[in-house]
This record gives sequence, C-alpha cells and structure tokens, in this order.
Amino acid sequence: MSDGGPKPVRIGLLGRGNVGAAFADLVAERSAAVEAATGRSPEIAGVLTRSEGDFGAILERSDLVVELMGGTDPARQFVTDALRAGRPVVTANKQLLAQHGDELFGIAREAGVQLRFEAAVAAVIPIVRTIQESFGVTRIERVFGIVNGTTNFILSEMAASGAGYSEVLKEAQRLGYAEADPTDDVSGADAAAKMAILARLAFHTQVPLSEVAYEGIEAIRPDDLAYAKELGLSLKLLGVAERRDGGISVRVFPCFLYRGHPLAPIEGPFNAVMVEAPAINEVTMSGPGAGGLQTASAVLGDVVSILAGDAPVHETRTELPIVADVPSAFYLYLEVADQHGVLARIATVLGDHEVSVKSVVQRGIGEDARLVMVVHECLESRFAEAVAALGELDELRSAPRYIHVIEDEP
Amino acid sequence: MSDGGPKPVRIGLLGRGNVGAAFADLVAERSAAVEAATGRSPEIAGVLTRSEGDFGAILERSDLVVELMGGTDPARQFVTDALRAGRPVVTANKQLLAQHGDELFGIAREAGVQLRFEAAVAAVIPIVRTIQESFGVTRIERVFGIVNGTTNFILSEMAASGAGYSEVLKEAQRLGYAEADPTDDVSGADAAAKMAILARLAFHTQVPLSEVAYEGIEAIRPDDLAYAKELGLSLKLLGVAERRDGGISVRVFPCFLYRGHPLAPIEGPFNAVMVEAPAINEVTMSGPGAGGLQTASAVLGDVVSILAGDAPVHETRTELPIVADVPSAFYLYLEVADQHGVLARIATVLGDHEVSVKSVVQRGIGEDARLVMVVHECLESRFAEAVAALGELDELRSAPRYIHVIEDEP
Repeated sequence: MSDGGPKPVRIGLLGRGNVGAAFADLVAERSAAVEAATGRSPEIAGVLTRSEGDFGAILERSDLVVELMGGTDPARQFVTDALRAGRPVVTANKQLLAQHGDELFGIAREAGVQLRFEAAVAAVIPIVRTIQESFGVTRIERVFGIVNGTTNFILSEMAASGAGYSEVLKEAQRLGYAEADPTDDVSGADAAAKMAILARLAFHTQVPLSEVAYEGIEAIRPDDLAYAKELGLSLKLLGVAERRDGGISVRVFPCFLYRGHPLAPIEGPFNAVMVEAPAINEVTMSGPGAGGLQTASAVLGDVVSILAGDAPVHETRTELPIVADVPSAFYLYLEVADQHGVLARIATVLGDHEVSVKSVVQRGIGEDARLVMVVHECLESRFAEAVAALGELDELRSAPRYIHVIEDEP
Repeated sequence: MSDGGPKPVRIGLLGRGNVGAAFADLVAERSAAVEAATGRSPEIAGVLTRSEGDFGAILERSDLVVELMGGTDPARQFVTDALRAGRPVVTANKQLLAQHGDELFGIAREAGVQLRFEAAVAAVIPIVRTIQESFGVTRIERVFGIVNGTTNFILSEMAASGAGYSEVLKEAQRLGYAEADPTDDVSGADAAAKMAILARLAFHTQVPLSEVAYEGIEAIRPDDLAYAKELGLSLKLLGVAERRDGGISVRVFPCFLYRGHPLAPIEGPFNAVMVEAPAINEVTMSGPGAGGLQTASAVLGDVVSILAGDAPVHETRTELPIVADVPSAFYLYLEVADQHGVLARIATVLGDHEVSVKSVVQRGIGEDARLVMVVHECLESRFAEAVAALGELDELRSAPRYIHVIEDEP
C-alpha cells in the first residue's frame, strides 16, 4: 500500500523524559533532512513510558527502537527483546551498557543488528564513533578526560568564586546542571560508568564496572582550589583509561592540571575527551556533555547512521549563494607623523564610516607615533572604505595595516 | 581456491611518498587488528608511482583503491576509473576533492561505491566523519578553525620568539613543518581547499574553490604580534564557513582571537576545528593536522570503515587484567602545629618513602601553619604509605589531605 512517498522508518521510543521529549521534537523538526540523507522518512511509531504504552505492541510496529528510559530495569529486557526481534537499537543509557554491555553486544551480534550508543558518553561529542570507527584499528594507549558536566561546572564555579562545595552544588541544582539527588554525578559513579564503556571500546576487553575505582568531589574544599591556583593548577574530575603493565587501569578521580594542559581550559558544564596513540599522537574533542537537545541530537545521529548504512556519499541538496561581504572586527595599525593632531581626524574618519573603536594602544611620540586599535564588528566593505579614507590623511607615514579579529571576549 | 584463512582485501595503492610509505607500513603493522575488526586481511596488491607500475593492472587486482599521489592529474582520472570499476576509493587529496568533488561524488553515487577522504582535512582529527555522519542531519551554522599546521607553527613561533616571518619559515622548513616551496600553505590556498570541502559537507551545497576568498600570513610582522599581545590577542590563520544572509560565506584569513577563545590555546603544528549548531552548541576537535603516520592512520580508518560496512558491534578480543596500583603525582595539604620543627620531619618521612617534592607553598606560622606541596609521580601505594606515616606525626593538626596531579607542565 505504498502511496509513492518515501519509505518511512518507524521508531519505537522508550522513555519520554527530558531527552525523550527532545528527541521526538527533533525527529519532527529534522524529518526532511533525515529523508534527504537516508531516503527514509522518520516517524515515531509509539512511545512507552513507565506508566503508559505496551512494549510488545510498540515493538511490533517499529523498524528501530530508541531507548531513553535510563536505569537497567526494564531497559535491559526491552533492549534485549528488540535486538532479538531484529530491530536495531539506539540507546543513551550508560548504566545499561556499563553493567550489561557484554551481554547486549553479544545479542546484537547474534541478531546481526546494530546497537549504537553515542549519547551514552559525552552526549554530542562523537567520542564513541571516533574510537569505534576512526580509531577502530589504532592501538590506543590512553583515553581520558572530563566526562561529567555537573562536576566540572561545580569545580569551575568553586575555583572562580571561592565558594564552598555545598553552596555551589545548590547553585548547580538551581541552574539545572545537577539533579535533586546529585550522588551519581558528584561521587564519580556516573563518570566511572562512562569510562568503563570507553575503556571497553578502546582496548577491546571486558571492563567490569565493579573494577573501575572512583572518587568524587564531595570532599574538595575552597582552600584546595585557592592553594592550587598559587601553584598554577586547576582541578578537574578526570576519567582515565590506559594501558599499564600489560593490563589496563580505569579510574575516576579529582585531579589537578597545570595551565598548559589541553583539558585545563575546559570550564563549566562541558566535557572533553583525549585519545592518545602512537599513530595519532593525541586527539582532543570537547563540547557540551549533556542537555536534552544535545543528547537527543547524538541519538538522532545514531539513528541516521543505522538508516544510511555506509557513510553517505556527499550529495548537493541546495544551492546556497556565496556571500562575500560579511561583518568582522579588526585590528588596525597606523603609523602617524603627529599623534596629537591626527588622532581626532582618525576618530572622525572612523566615525563617519560608523566604525567604532573598542581599544587602543599608543606607542612613540611625534614623528614616530603608532596607533594600534581594535575596532568593533562592522561590514568588511564599510571597514575597507574607512581604511581607504584613512589612507588619504597626510599625517599617515605608511599605508594602514589591518587584520581580522574575532570579538567574543572571555 | 580458498585456503581457509580470512578473505583478503587487496588494496591498490597510488603514490608512495611520505604518506604512501607510512600507509603501507601501517597496513602491515595493523593487519591483525584490521582482520579482527572486519574479518578481512589487508594486503597491498600493487603500488603505482609516477615512474613505476601500471594503473590498469593494479586496478584489475584490487578490491579497493587508496589514492595518495596528490595533485589533480592523473589522480582525477585514476579515481574516476576506480569508482567506475566499482572499487571504493579512499583519498587524502584535498585539491582533487575541492576542485572536482562534485564530479567524483556523482560518479561514486552512480557506481554505488564509497568515496572516503577523512585524511584530506586535518589528518587524524575525524572532522569529515563527524560532519557527514554524527551531524549529517544537523543544521550546522558554522564550521571554523585552524586547518593548516604549517602556518599555525609559524605564527606560534613568531609570537613566542619575536622573530620575523622569513626567519621562522626557515626554521619550519628545517623541522619539516614547511615544504621547500611553502606557497600553498602560507598563502592560505591549502586552507581554502580544506574549507571548501568542509563547507560543502556542512551545508550540502556546491562550493566552487574559486569563490573561497583567502589571505595568507606572509605579510604578518612581529610588530603586529607584539601589539596584539598587549591587547590580549593571539593570531591564527582561520578558515571560516558559515551561513550568512540566506547564503554562505567561506573564507580563510589571519585573525586575532582573545585569550578565552577555544582556539586561542592551539599552538604549533596542530589543527582544531569547531562546529556550531543550535542542536549541539559547539563541538571542538583538535590534534596533529599532518604528518605521514597521522595521515596514513586516517586513511586506514577509512579503509576499515569501508570494509566493516555498518559500525562494528563491540566485541571483546582480549582479556586485559585491571591494574589497580599506578603512578601519579599528588597535591598534599598538611596542617601543622609548628612549622619549623616539623618541616624536616615531613621531608624525612617523604624521603624514606622515595616521594620527592616538586613545589611547596607555606602559609601561616606557629599553631596555624599549613604546608601545601606537589610531589612528583610515584606509585600510589607508595604515596599512600608515606601519607599514613605522616599521619603518625604528633605535629599534624589534622589528617593529611591529598589530590591527584597530572605532572606534564607546559
């Protein structure tokens, strides 16, 4: 009974919390893009919540199952049943994979269907895909990073404000960065589950969650952060999975980093993961580690990968014109003969072209004066006209020099 | 005529320069891993160089073609022929894709085979895969970053040393970070080709290379970098591809960034690319942007993806023991009753356990003294014993507190 339209893909959605709701919205919003990328039009075939819906009936009318319930029970049974019924599964459930991954991966292989879980670790940062696919045959030595946004937010805030742990935790709860019961995050347990998953993928070995040692951030005091600052250190809750002495070590612990470390600048509710291997040196990936929309976006990426099968061969879908004249801020360097006389004139020329000055450095005096400034964002064409007009001023000892600036200041 | 071993995959290798040679070595070295991941054992079926080998004969006996010759001629013809003959192709050739991508993508789609090119942009940073697969249906607003390692090395060195462009360029050539003829890199042309490729993938539109405006770094003077430092700015050669006014803008230009910008800390011959979209906020990926082994590693990742088809379902291949006791550096916080008397004893206890002190901060005097120190890396068990021994000292006013430290200092 085809109506000639694209073949739909019917998604059985398990869970309608924060991420589940965002996922359903995203499927509707990006439906045309999914169809363009995969030839299939996605639709939600049914939603199961803890109180509503019948799993068997939803499974029956689904081509693919997305599990966003969290927890291991009944998620484990549902994922098992879906895989056994030949349905590919996408899940964001880190506890399920960390505790029952071996079993579920085995069932997926047996059934010959995909089990994808990018969103289970670091949300929209494509660390699972990168380790499994890009670095699938690379001898990885170490995977480590910040895989819990709640604790990174708390530590960043404590360091910035000098406030104590409890006070900052409350602030994090108020802003939605920490749950009402924050134990799983602040104890390091959440990060431990994620590191167990990453270690398994990186080292192709079993990593029982019970053998992942973890410490949390509950005992960190503002004092520690203040002293550490004097020593040039900043504090992160790190997950580390690495080869050691013919085995592996997988751990989560608060850790000070020196300022030059690539993870030191990662602040707020962000995640960042580094992968080290001789063949790649080190690759670092960072981004928002959670959030309903971000997590849903990672889930949709997995759904599309399942539908697309092989990587898509690029295809032009739109004709977008190339826009040449865009806004930018600029650094402007002027050598001027007489600083006092000319400054007003320069300001006037810039003002006439609606170019406004953000900051100025002056050096030298009289014949040897230089004016170096940053001007705020304006259309490049307008700035070019201003520079041409400046070039006409007799007091300029050489042609104006300028370089683009990106204005977002920390 | 099967001998019962795994089915080999025969790779026709075009080009045996720096990357080609590294790729051939890597295939040999990672052969067992490729077989474990894909069930196929890789072998080089033939190598074509500009002076040796017959393309037709190599194509005939290959299952898959890897093009690492560079340049558009004869690479364009070879890739076309390989795709038309039904062979998947992996290439690292950015000029080929930037100039003839539309044509080649069309041929690949027609032939129903994959054309992969992760190594063409930012080597081992999986930016192509991420944009095409993870963010394949995401409405990307902007892709930008540092996509040329040569110029980033030169700008970093100029900023650090105060030396001039020509002098630092010579140093880069001596270290192998710049070619004998550096024009393509320093003019921005190389970055422009890469941005054309990324823009095409991100926005699903044609991006003629001729419409990508670029500026290089040849005119940058040490003066500019010195003034910029006073303004809190650091200089990068940026590629920017973004939606603008219903179209797109794709450009390469030197650009100052404020210190808090995620790309500001990227120094030396590294690359970093950021992707911005409402559904993902921003994701940043960084790593070495070139190097024979790194580029070869990205090429092998693509080969494995072609062989694996769908993403691999994780499988345990080894049994690695979990190692519990590993080395670490530590931050150690001690409240002591009498600083003078106790410092020598503390040093003795640490020394007895072969724990050596890297730096110390002292605060307060007499009854209220605190000693905060960082100790060098040692086995955690040894450090724990030292801490236990310190805890026995009468002069300690509270239990010692400690936190891990990663010691690599900038």
